[in-house]
Amino acid sequence: MAKQSFQKPKGTADLLPGESEKWHYVEETARLLFSDYQYHEIRTPLFESFEVFSRSAGDTSDVVTKEMYDFHDKGDRHVALRPEGTAGVVRAYVENKLYAPEQAKPYKAFYIGPMFRYERPQAGRMRQFHQIGVEAFGADSAALDAEVIAMAVDFFQTLGLTTLKVAINSLGDAETRANYRQALIDFLEPHFDELSDDSKERLHKNPLRVLDSKDEKDQEFVADAPSILDYLTDDAKAHWEKLQTMLDALGIDYEIDSSMVRGLDYYNHTIFEIMTNSKALGRGWTTISGGGRYNGMVEEFGGPETSGIGFGIGLERLMLLLENEDAPLPDVDPLDFYVVNIGEETDVEALKLVQGIRSYGYSAERDYLDRKPKAQFKSADRLNARYVITIGPEELANQTANLKNLANGEEVKITLAQVYTELPDLVDDGGDQLVEVEIVED
Amino acid sequence: MAKQSFQKPKGTADLLPGESEKWHYVEETARLLFSDYQYHEIRTPLFESFEVFSRSAGDTSDVVTKEMYDFHDKGDRHVALRPEGTAGVVRAYVENKLYAPEQAKPYKAFYIGPMFRYERPQAGRMRQFHQIGVEAFGADSAALDAEVIAMAVDFFQTLGLTTLKVAINSLGDAETRANYRQALIDFLEPHFDELSDDSKERLHKNPLRVLDSKDEKDQEFVADAPSILDYLTDDAKAHWEKLQTMLDALGIDYEIDSSMVRGLDYYNHTIFEIMTNSKALGRGWTTISGGGRYNGMVEEFGGPETSGIGFGIGLERLMLLLENEDAPLPDVDPLDFYVVNIGEETDVEALKLVQGIRSYGYSAERDYLDRKPKAQFKSADRLNARYVITIGPEELANQTANLKNLANGEEVKITLAQVYTELPDLVDDGGDQLVEVEIVED
Repeated sequence: MAKQSFQKPKGTADLLPGESEKWHYVEETARLLFSDYQYHEIRTPLFESFEVFSRSAGDTSDVVTKEMYDFHDKGDRHVALRPEGTAGVVRAYVENKLYAPEQAKPYKAFYIGPMFRYERPQAGRMRQFHQIGVEAFGADSAALDAEVIAMAVDFFQTLGLTTLKVAINSLGDAETRANYRQALIDFLEPHFDELSDDSKERLHKNPLRVLDSKDEKDQEFVADAPSILDYLTDDAKAHWEKLQTMLDALGIDYEIDSSMVRGLDYYNHTIFEIMTNSKALGRGWTTISGGGRYNGMVEEFGGPETSGIGFGIGLERLMLLLENEDAPLPDVDPLDFYVVNIGEETDVEALKLVQGIRSYGYSAERDYLDRKPKAQFKSADRLNARYVITIGPEELANQTANLKNLANGEEVKITLAQVYTELPDLVDDGGDQLVEVEIVED
Repeated sequence: MAKQSFQKPKGTADLLPGESEKWHYVEETARLLFSDYQYHEIRTPLFESFEVFSRSAGDTSDVVTKEMYDFHDKGDRHVALRPEGTAGVVRAYVENKLYAPEQAKPYKAFYIGPMFRYERPQAGRMRQFHQIGVEAFGADSAALDAEVIAMAVDFFQTLGLTTLKVAINSLGDAETRANYRQALIDFLEPHFDELSDDSKERLHKNPLRVLDSKDEKDQEFVADAPSILDYLTDDAKAHWEKLQTMLDALGIDYEIDSSMVRGLDYYNHTIFEIMTNSKALGRGWTTISGGGRYNGMVEEFGGPETSGIGFGIGLERLMLLLENEDAPLPDVDPLDFYVVNIGEETDVEALKLVQGIRSYGYSAERDYLDRKPKAQFKSADRLNARYVITIGPEELANQTANLKNLANGEEVKITLAQVYTELPDLVDDGGDQLVEVEIVED
C-alpha cells in the first residue's frame, strides 16, 4: 500500500543546497556591512502577543484585519506569527530597557529572518517570506536618516546592483500631518462620489492612504492633490532640508516623491524607498526596500518618548533580482579531496583519510556505497574535486596512496603518513589553509 | 495616560546585540565544519501540515499529544510550528525527489533554526528553541554512522569543549526489534502491577520506552532486563561491529549503553548520544546531542525505501554550556574609528568622514545628538574604538583633522583628503583591510 505523501504548505518554499549558499552569502554581506555602520543583530521571537502587531500596524492596515497568522496557544493566549520585523524589535527595545542611559544612542540593530502573512502567493511574494531590516532608536538627527538611506544603497551596490533609484518624502510632524490631512479631505471631498470604495472608506479615517490607491480614477485626482511638503512646519522643514544637504554631500542621487506615504500609520518625517528597474520584478521601477522614521512607536509600546528609523528588505524579491541581474552569487564550494577506495579492506582507512584531511580544514568526501572506482571518480568529478586520493589493497599493504591533481592530471605516489602529517605541503593552490601556511613561512 | 506595555511570550527570548554575536559564531562554526564533511544547508518552512509531524513522531510521542503549536490557518488547514527538524527535511527530501539518480548519495544536509514546543519553560528549555541538526539519506554503510558521530564530536571540540562522552547502542533491524520486544514483554509482565502507570500503558504499545522511564522502581526492573544487543540479527550485528571498528580506528572513545532507546519510534541500528559533565546543565552526565538511524521514515513519507541518519543539537543548552565552561566566544568587535565633530558646521563633513571610512571596510561611528566633545570621546571609549578622528570649525576651514591612536595616545594632524584616499596607510595595525593591503604591496 502506497504511503501518504506530503507537500510543503502553500506559499512556503524549501531552500535546498545550491540555493541556500546564495541566501547565506546575501545575509552575511548584510551582517558585515551593517557592522561597519555599528548596527548589531537582534533576534526576537517568531511569534508575539497578537496585540504587539495589531498595535503597531494601526487600525486600517490590511495586515491586521486579513493577513495575520494568528491563533490561540494551548494556554489560550492570542498569539501571531510575526508579519513584519519592526514591532517585535520595538517591543524588545522597551521590555529590555534598551533606552537606559548606559546604552548607546542611537541604539542600532538589524534583524534577518522569516515573517508570515496569509496572502495570495505570487512570484517573490510568499506566506513565509524573509526580511532583512534595521532599526535605530533615540536620535532625531537628519544625519541618521541620511546614514540609513546610504547604508541601504551601499548594501545593494555591494551585492552588485547598479540600476538603483532613491525616492524620498517627508510626512513632517504631528502638526504637519493634521494640517495636511484637513487639506487633503477638503480637496478630495468634492469628488467623493467618484472615488473608489476603498478610498471612500479611507477618506475620513486615513486620507493619506488615498494617495496610495492603485485605482486609476483615484490616481487622477491624486495627481492634482496638494503636496504635504507645502504643509511642513518650520522644524519639519529644517529636518527635511538637512536630509537633502546630507544626501547631496554623500553623492546619493534621489528623487522627491511628495505623493509617497507608505503603509504604516506610524511614519513621520523622512520616508524613503529604494527602487530598481528590472524585468525580474515586473514592469518599470519597483520598490526593493522601504523605510522611514516612526517617532511615536516606542511610546505606543509603553516606553519613553523615543524616535526611531528603519527600513526593511524582502529577501525573496532581492534573490530574484540578483539572479536576474547576473549579480555575483556563490556556487557550492568545490570539494578539496575525494578519497577513492578499492576493496572492502580499505573501507576503514578511507574513513581515517577523509577525517585526517578534514582535520586540516579541507573538505573531503568518500564513497559509502561500495561502488566501483569508476563510479567513485565520477562522483569526484561531479563534486568538482581538486584532488583525488586513491587507495587499494596494495597501497594499504604498503601504507601508500595515489594523489591526483584533477586540474592538471598530475599524479604522485605518497605515503599515508604524509597525508596525516604534511598534506598542505603536497598540494599547491589557494585554499584558505594554504594562504595561512604561506604567511607563516614568509 | 500610560500606554500598555508588552512582554515577549512565555518561554521565548530576545537575543540582543552582545549575545547574538556568540550565537552567530557557533552557527558559523557548524556551517564551516559541516561543509568540510560535505553537508550543505537546507531550510524548510517553519510550519508544516500537522500530519507531517504526527506521522514522523509516532503515536506514543508526547510531542504530538501535548506539546505541538498547532492551529488552523485562515484556509482551515491544520498546520503546526515545527517541533523538531527531521520531519520537515524528510518531507522536503521526498517532495523534491532528492533521491533521484543525479543527486549525490548519501544526500547530506544540515539545518539551523527555531523549533517550537508548548512545554513548561526551564533553564535551557524554551518554547521557541533552536537546533542545529544534520541528516544523511541513502547509505547503509557503518562508515556513515561513524562519520556522523565523529562530526558531532569534532563540532563540540572545535568549540572548545573537552569533557565529552559518546554513548552508543544498536536497535537492530525490524526482526531484531520484534524479537526483543517480545523478550522485554515476557520479562516485564510478571512485574506488571509494580510498574509505574506510564510504563503499564507502554508495556504492550511500545515496551522499549519502558527502558526510558524516569521512575525509580521501573529503573530497578530495567536494570535486569534483557539486552537488545543479544537479539541482533546477523546483519544487524555485522553493522554494529563495523561501527565499533570504525570508531576505534578514528580514536573516538565511546561507551555502549544497551538500555538507551531514545524517543522516536523510527530509530533502528545505530543510536547515539554525546554527553558532557558540566554543572551548567545539572548534575552528572547530560546529553547535548542525540541521533541515530531511521531507516523507515522516507518510505513513511511516500518516498522510496531509503535509509537515513542524523543528529540534533539544542542551541540553548549548548550556549549555556559554552558560557559556563569558558569556551572562547567572540565579543562585539572593537570599533575601528570614532569621528568626533565639534560645532554644527562640521555635521555634514562628519557624516562624509564616517561614510568614507566605512567604504574601506572599516567600522566607523559618530555622534548624532549634538553632544559636547567630552561626551563623544566617552562614546569612543565605550565602543572600544581604536582611533578617533576629530574635526572642529578650524580644521574644517583648513580641510584637516586630528587622528588619535587610542592604544598609544599618539596624535597626528592629517588632511581630509588623506582620509578619503589613503586612510589604511595612516593606521598601523591588523584590521582585515591592512592585511590585504600588505599582501598587495609585497
